[in-house]
Formats: sequence, C-alpha cells, structure tokens
Amino acid sequence: MENFFSRLGSRVASRDSMLCIGLDSDVQHLPSCCRSEPNPQLFFNRQIIEATADLVCTYKINLAFYESEGTRGWDALEKTRALIPSDIPVIGDAKRADIGNTSKHYARALFDVLGFDAITVNPYMGSDSLTPFFEYKDRGVFVLCLTSNPGAGEFQIPNTLFLNVARHCRAWHSTYGTIGLVTGAPYPEQLSEIRDAFPEGWFLVPGVGAQGGDLTAVITAGIRREDAAGLIINVSRSVIFASKEQDFAEHARRSAEETVKMIRNAKGAVS
Amino acid sequence: MENFFSRLGSRVASRDSMLCIGLDSDVQHLPSCCRSEPNPQLFFNRQIIEATADLVCTYKINLAFYESEGTRGWDALEKTRALIPSDIPVIGDAKRADIGNTSKHYARALFDVLGFDAITVNPYMGSDSLTPFFEYKDRGVFVLCLTSNPGAGEFQIPNTLFLNVARHCRAWHSTYGTIGLVTGAPYPEQLSEIRDAFPEGWFLVPGVGAQGGDLTAVITAGIRREDAAGLIINVSRSVIFASKEQDFAEHARRSAEETVKMIRNAKGAVS
Repeated sequence: MENFFSRLGSRVASRDSMLCIGLDSDVQHLPSCCRSEPNPQLFFNRQIIEATADLVCTYKINLAFYESEGTRGWDALEKTRALIPSDIPVIGDAKRADIGNTSKHYARALFDVLGFDAITVNPYMGSDSLTPFFEYKDRGVFVLCLTSNPGAGEFQIPNTLFLNVARHCRAWHSTYGTIGLVTGAPYPEQLSEIRDAFPEGWFLVPGVGAQGGDLTAVITAGIRREDAAGLIINVSRSVIFASKEQDFAEHARRSAEETVKMIRNAKGAVS
Repeated sequence: MENFFSRLGSRVASRDSMLCIGLDSDVQHLPSCCRSEPNPQLFFNRQIIEATADLVCTYKINLAFYESEGTRGWDALEKTRALIPSDIPVIGDAKRADIGNTSKHYARALFDVLGFDAITVNPYMGSDSLTPFFEYKDRGVFVLCLTSNPGAGEFQIPNTLFLNVARHCRAWHSTYGTIGLVTGAPYPEQLSEIRDAFPEGWFLVPGVGAQGGDLTAVITAGIRREDAAGLIINVSRSVIFASKEQDFAEHARRSAEETVKMIRNAKGAVS
C-alpha cells in the first residue's frame, strides 16, 4: 500500500502541475446543453475530466453539490469518482468528523464506499474524532486549518487556533503519515506561519480564482522549502464554468492550461 | 411557518419528556433477526419508532450510520425520515458546514431533500458558513459547542473557545431565532458556564447513557432557569440496542420509559 502523499508527489512531479480542479458541478450553473441529459452532473463531469485529465495533479469533489440533488446526485457522485483515471488521486471534500465510533462510519463511506484517495475533515472535535480517518494507511486526510472564507477570522484566527491545529496535525502526521492541511489562499501571512509549523506537510489551497486569492503570494508563503513542492492549488468555478456554451469543455481546458502556466511562473519566480 | 423551537417546546411539554432517541442504527449491531430483511436498518427503525414514539420529544438520525451503507443506507435514511409521525420533530445529526455557497447545498440536502426539522452543524468555519442553515426560518440549527468526546479538550476548551462559540450563537439566535447548541453531558461544569452565556437557548445533550455522562449533573447545570426546559437529552445505544433478541423493540421501549423517568426525577430534584 503506497502512501497517499508519495503518490501525490509523483503525480505533481510527473505532470509538473499543482493544479487541482474542483468538480463543484452545481446543477443550476451547468451549461444549458447539459440540462436535458438523464444525469446532467455526470454528463458535465465526464467532458470536463476528458478535457483536463492530463493537466491536473488531482480532482476534488465537494459532496454538497451532489447531496443537494438527492439520489440522482449520489449516483452522479459515485459514477464521477469511477470515471476518473486511476493514476489521478481524487479528494472527497466532505469536511466530516464526529465522535470516534461515528467517524468510523464516515471513513467507511468516504474511503470504502465512495473510494476517495483523500478527504477533508474538520478538527473542532479533536483527535479521537479524526483518528478513524488517519488510520487508513494508503489514504490522505486534509484537516481544515485556516479556511478561505471570511468567517475564518471568527474562531480560527483568535488565539491562533489555526496554528494550534497545524502543530497538532504535524504531530499526528509523524505518527500516521497520512495528514495534510487545508489552508486558504486569502491569508498568505498566516500561510507562512503554517508552513513554519508544519514544514514537511502537504497543503491543499482553496480560494484562488473565484474567491480572489493571490497566486504568487500563496506560493511564496506556502511552498515547501526543501523541494519547492507540498502545495495543491484548487480552482473550481473559474475553470469548470469558463464557458456556458456547448464548447464548455474546450474552454475549461484552456482555462486549466492558463492556470497551470500561472502556477509554474509563480513557482519559477519563487524558487 | 412556526418556529422550530416553539414546536419543540410544545412537544417537550405535552409529552413531559426531554428524551431524544438517536437512531444510530449501525448495521453491524442490529439484532440478528433484522439482518435478513431487504433493508435491515429500515426494518429495525420502523419497530423502534413504533415502540417509542409516544415517549420522545424528538428523534435524531446520525447520517454517518447510513452513508456507510451506500445507496441502501440512503434509501433507509429517506424512508426512516418519512415514517416518523409528523408531530415529532426530527434532527439530522450531520455536523456539516462549508463556505457559504457550498453550505447552501448542504442546507438544501438536509432541509429540502431529506426534510429534517433541525440539524447539527460545526462552527469552525464561522458565521458565513452557517448562515445558509440559519436562514431556514421554520427549522432549527444546533451548533457544536462542547462535544461529548475526549477530544473536546483539545481545541474547544483551551482559551474557552466553546464559550466564544456559545456567545456568538446567542447573538446569531437573536437575529435568526433558529439556533441552539450541542453541549456534551460529560462536562457539567462547563455546561453551567454555557447556560450563563446563552440563558434562553435550547441545548441538545449527547453523552448520557453509553458515554457515561451523569444525568442529574447535566440537568442541574444545563436546565433553562426561567421555565425548567431548554434541554434535550439524547440517548442512542442504551435504548435502541437494549436487547439483541427478537423482542428488541419491547426492550427499547422499556429502556426509553426508564430513561424518561430518570430524567423526570432528576428534573424534579432540581426545580
């Protein structure tokens, strides 16, 4: 069983890409040509994946956009997961956690039933709520540290809770080898402190693109110093909804190519 | 549209019961007589609900135990929700939250698709991650404040984060009228501080029963002083798995009756 972060590192290196495309395929925002399909989300995702698979290090699927469609959404979720080529790791963005006995069931749902290579979890309930996820030795767990939304300032930043979370995660990672962080793009100053607290960790960075985080600032602050790696940049809406016309997949590819270039340039300027 | 907490208060008063039964119907722990049914969780839940409906103020359904069963679990979840009599509020224990645009989709899944009267959410990401839930005017949102597991001591208690959460929730409740708290039974000292911080709030208390929290201590510390109400006591395993034999529903009823009596006695001793 190969470690998730080894697989991720190989993929980032082989594609020279830190780009993670978020398949936040909100039905209400799909191009109109997809709407009449029996399963619009699945139809849309298939074309996006075919058009971009060689450009990404990972895909990320946020479960909310599928759960809100009920049974049809769950069907799209399972089938989207299944059609992503096996050499591309897939992150289930679920932000789960519960008491230990219950988290075991979430872990089974996300890792065994849905087959995600990695997931996101919420640290509020502490280590026994997360251990059932950490124990899957060939999977990855990105713990919310400092999120990309305005509300991050309410509980995460006061008393530097986010740094306390980062330090705990580093300690847990030294035991399990399966733990990374979610660190939002809009806070490069704090991202630099997080990198100091967890120098060897992999960080999943949402908030570039539609949410407006600055790419160069993120890479300067967050890049892993020893090997200029350790970052995954998630972009969703600005890629997948680059066009709402019939050629949406082509436009998504173009937007993904541009993003990969921008990431490479920013990285080149830093290292 | 009647406010959720008004409906809840009426039900607690009319049944003279603060008992919430948690339908944590883990397939691996079901009585063997349920296993051969086409949908074991649904078969089990139907009998538990029929045997206990007159004793409870609410049922709580934790989604993890259903998600881990894949499609069959989702089917059991939807159908269990549908077979609970409409005068009994049902809490979806989901512990969700995400950036605002995404939380809207979770809200739709939990309130519109699954039809829960109330849900639980995680406060780590702050107010904009919770507002989409708060805005459903006829539903309730229990925000994790101090949870019942050992890990509550890691991030919630240092710097009294749980009190900061309780104070924020009180302020949000004064705007939306839809917000309560989750406060774990094993921490009666902190529960008393939480009651001071949010005197008028409704608290959902897990951790009595299998997790060993002390009922009298909980009620003494947590009861709403103005009307000796404002508490829901959740019990799961000690009721639903009171027996693993064919007469499991009868035993569940007996255990529920005892719990209701114990709650009434503890309340009587306090007020």
